[in-house]
Amino acid sequence: MARVVGLEQRVGFEYRIIDVYSAAFLDRLNPLRQIPTLVIDDEEAIFDSRAIFACFDAMSDLPPLIDPASTTQATRISLCIGLSEACLAYRMETVRPRNRQSPDVLDKQIARMQRCMGHVAGRFDDFTGEDRRIEKILLGCSLEYVDYRFSRAWRNEFPRLAAFSDQFGARDSMAVSRPYG
Amino acid sequence: MARVVGLEQRVGFEYRIIDVYSAAFLDRLNPLRQIPTLVIDDEEAIFDSRAIFACFDAMSDLPPLIDPASTTQATRISLCIGLSEACLAYRMETVRPRNRQSPDVLDKQIARMQRCMGHVAGRFDDFTGEDRRIEKILLGCSLEYVDYRFSRAWRNEFPRLAAFSDQFGARDSMAVSRPYG
Repeated sequence: MARVVGLEQRVGFEYRIIDVYSAAFLDRLNPLRQIPTLVIDDEEAIFDSRAIFACFDAMSDLPPLIDPASTTQATRISLCIGLSEACLAYRMETVRPRNRQSPDVLDKQIARMQRCMGHVAGRFDDFTGEDRRIEKILLGCSLEYVDYRFSRAWRNEFPRLAAFSDQFGARDSMAVSRPYG
Repeated sequence: MARVVGLEQRVGFEYRIIDVYSAAFLDRLNPLRQIPTLVIDDEEAIFDSRAIFACFDAMSDLPPLIDPASTTQATRISLCIGLSEACLAYRMETVRPRNRQSPDVLDKQIARMQRCMGHVAGRFDDFTGEDRRIEKILLGCSLEYVDYRFSRAWRNEFPRLAAFSDQFGARDSMAVSRPYG
């Protein structure tokens, strides 16, 4: 998400893939040891994603993606990030040893993803309208992440979301940022 | 956290405790089914915490807590929220059936809490200085949450943080919001 936002805002940044589990150097910068972390001048770290979006907006010559005065937009952003986080929580559960997995946790995250997609499908224009640049980026990234880590089955139930995902996914920023083939 | 922010900003709001697992009414408003959710006019929902903080700032007659232009402040906010989230993840792990718990997950979250507290202790003034109102609120809430859900042992290692927590915890906003005795 952060990478797509940076590319869409045409900000110059160097992208580095790190193994977050062995990246002890990161701890000094971001004690949460979480990605994404934006490092400025090898010194200051900016996180989480939302702080990085704001930073890219400030660095960009293009009109900002985020309107800090709009809590309605902030909530749409929370929803898209929440969809991704539900998918990440699902993923983290599935990589545990089989006998340490919790069916309740898996069900809860699946239901959460389902509700989020239903919510967006019912307010399609709020998330995909002409001026909804940040919403489209975050929704596009989240839907592809669901495809990648959970399932593509939602595409039958939410065909407009699927069509949006396919169309948005054709953008250069998305093609460059895709972590898989 | 959101409740303390609302009280500190002297915003009028009604506080309701809900059972988030059975609160189907919430799904229409917040499909993530997460708390806190701020509901305006029974209609619009604002989430997550950060969006609620911004909303309370907009509703308040007091000077705002958040400077939307400061990504450095946004990162300090992320750190305090991240400390709470690590503690929540620890808690959620400990309430699973014993044989479904993962020692790796517990260790990871404990180490994350430890790193966060060490980071703040090393930059104490950045988080507790005179003008650091939002930082103090979020740090104060996070440290009490660690006390409540994990352990008070950190107090020996980080005595300045412990002194801050005790002092900040005496505020009315904190006393009113404490979910336990």
